[in-house]
Amino acid sequence: MTEKLSDTSDGMTLLDGRIMRLREVARANKLDAVVVSHLSNLFYLTHLRTSAGVLVVDVNDDRLRFLLDFRYQTAAAALIRERCGPSGLEVVPVTGSYEEAVAAVLNSTSVARVGLEADHMTVRQWQWLDRHAHVSLVPLVELVERLRMIKDEGELAILRRAGRLLSEIVPDVMALAALKRPEVEIARGIDQLVLEAGFERTAFETIVASGPNSALPHAHPTARKLSNGDLVILDFGGVLDGYCVDISRTVVVGIADAECKRLYSAVQEAQRAAIDKVIPGESAEQIDAAARDVLDSYGLGEAFGHSTGHGLGLDVHELPRIGRKQVTAEPVMLARGMVFTIEPGVYVPGLGGVRIEDDVLVTASGVERLTYSAGELVAT
Amino acid sequence: MTEKLSDTSDGMTLLDGRIMRLREVARANKLDAVVVSHLSNLFYLTHLRTSAGVLVVDVNDDRLRFLLDFRYQTAAAALIRERCGPSGLEVVPVTGSYEEAVAAVLNSTSVARVGLEADHMTVRQWQWLDRHAHVSLVPLVELVERLRMIKDEGELAILRRAGRLLSEIVPDVMALAALKRPEVEIARGIDQLVLEAGFERTAFETIVASGPNSALPHAHPTARKLSNGDLVILDFGGVLDGYCVDISRTVVVGIADAECKRLYSAVQEAQRAAIDKVIPGESAEQIDAAARDVLDSYGLGEAFGHSTGHGLGLDVHELPRIGRKQVTAEPVMLARGMVFTIEPGVYVPGLGGVRIEDDVLVTASGVERLTYSAGELVAT
Repeated sequence: MTEKLSDTSDGMTLLDGRIMRLREVARANKLDAVVVSHLSNLFYLTHLRTSAGVLVVDVNDDRLRFLLDFRYQTAAAALIRERCGPSGLEVVPVTGSYEEAVAAVLNSTSVARVGLEADHMTVRQWQWLDRHAHVSLVPLVELVERLRMIKDEGELAILRRAGRLLSEIVPDVMALAALKRPEVEIARGIDQLVLEAGFERTAFETIVASGPNSALPHAHPTARKLSNGDLVILDFGGVLDGYCVDISRTVVVGIADAECKRLYSAVQEAQRAAIDKVIPGESAEQIDAAARDVLDSYGLGEAFGHSTGHGLGLDVHELPRIGRKQVTAEPVMLARGMVFTIEPGVYVPGLGGVRIEDDVLVTASGVERLTYSAGELVAT
Repeated sequence: MTEKLSDTSDGMTLLDGRIMRLREVARANKLDAVVVSHLSNLFYLTHLRTSAGVLVVDVNDDRLRFLLDFRYQTAAAALIRERCGPSGLEVVPVTGSYEEAVAAVLNSTSVARVGLEADHMTVRQWQWLDRHAHVSLVPLVELVERLRMIKDEGELAILRRAGRLLSEIVPDVMALAALKRPEVEIARGIDQLVLEAGFERTAFETIVASGPNSALPHAHPTARKLSNGDLVILDFGGVLDGYCVDISRTVVVGIADAECKRLYSAVQEAQRAAIDKVIPGESAEQIDAAARDVLDSYGLGEAFGHSTGHGLGLDVHELPRIGRKQVTAEPVMLARGMVFTIEPGVYVPGLGGVRIEDDVLVTASGVERLTYSAGELVAT
């Protein structure tokens, strides 16, 4: 089952491979150094989990400096001692602010063009650095994120296991929805199931949106009790070894009327159409269009206001975005090793909403479903 | 007990008062409009909870435009219909990206100088807007955050209740630590207690750091089982009606040796010294120094690497920062209505760590503790 996507066949460690690919892209962009500060990018490159930190990657030599405050220096030292980090990693202690430390490191070397993560650096940080670091700052868009889009074998093993664990609790989640308890209680019950399944935490705030609330695509659970005839959207996820999976099911409490059934069939068909389109070389836009065309044909195009899906990995929303063309984003072509959700939904004020979401992997020849538990419209 | 900090005495609603104060500060900064995009700032100003949105506040007239995508338009319409939002709120639907929508709104009016949140806007967003909006962009630092520092009566009522609820579970949390179970299991048990106490969610990932792990100030719970003689840091929090409280206790499993007792006494004394200093007009730096001086006197100054505290409110880390002077941040003077943690800690590799954290409110005459449960060093 497991496809060969390893990058360790040449004996290079996983993390060294990632750093090498980052240097290659940086070199192609004529950069002398790359400054990485986004936390999941830092974890991806170092395997150290922090809530702050900056990695300065020299492009033309092997220097790899990890600027860390007091809180993480002990953990980083252990990582280096046990050779669990990338080769050549050094820790640079940060005592004041991170901006000051970055400026000091950049000013101590001869780098001229330095790339920084334009999506993860605030305007304040940028302006401060621009005044204090004597280098030319270059805004980078999704440099590490684009590397992260293609999962390696180890990541896929985790995501497959996570998808299976999440799928296996779906019947219990649907049984909870039949209890006619308040949304918040059902959400807590789902969280409990997610943790008992072996996830380290939930991937996001669980959504239980019933009746009129189901017409709000991102409702927070309320004190509203589920009652007969309600459409109920259940959207939940878990994090396993740092990797996120995400699933949604919609049920009707008691007896589903014809209109609920029609919405459900439309979304189910839209999801199937989108999944069937997944193959390397297809554009993300086309996957989105496949779902959208089905809903349009049901007259429900206007009721589907969000994107068809989003990438999954260390972040619960990452690249690729499976949506309509955006002026402000680069288009994405599907490639082997990408993992994302397919989650069309319709939201009809006064009636309710339906969303069905599964996680898929792009394989060499098409698609592999990572979540699979069958949805049943009626919760009993 | 409840001090009068209401801003509704003139009949103005709470949210209108907030918007009015924002316009005053903006006017003092010679701005024609302010663009707010940080989620907790949006909630503070509108009482709508979203995961995206932009509020464009005109300074020289009453226009208040809330740019929202599909997901939140129904909820915003209900807010306006039920008059739960600020006066004059209009919804502007966003169909493409938020940057495009902001540019379109700004270009449709005659505003010239527009303030944007420099801490919450990415470099990419800023650069895009700078090219496409025909206005002068002004980076704002902590404009809404500084308003949020001073809690009003309604906020204080929630924070007092939250502090009491969190304090009341401390004995049960400490009993959990005596069970010698793995850190992750204890963390889950704590999360369960937090939810059962009535919090809507935990305020952050619960920390259970035992033995050598307690020397890592922000450790993630591991599979390590607690055992006799371990120092164990328990750091947890809850969110009630949107507001965060946060507490830490440290226990020793079984019998505490002399060195553990010494660390504990030092931190306890440092915390007391800092709390005793809290009074309007004192600088945040001086509160930090009070704790730091005590730990220095124990020869533990180097072992205390983080700040003494942080503000609490809609975010679990907000202003004021109770720490040493920072080059990159504005100093803060304490004022009535501020709420923050006081959490000195020491971390000694090989031995372990101790952190004791409580939440306090600055009153007219000094300090009120919001959390209060007595710590006991030994968990039995």
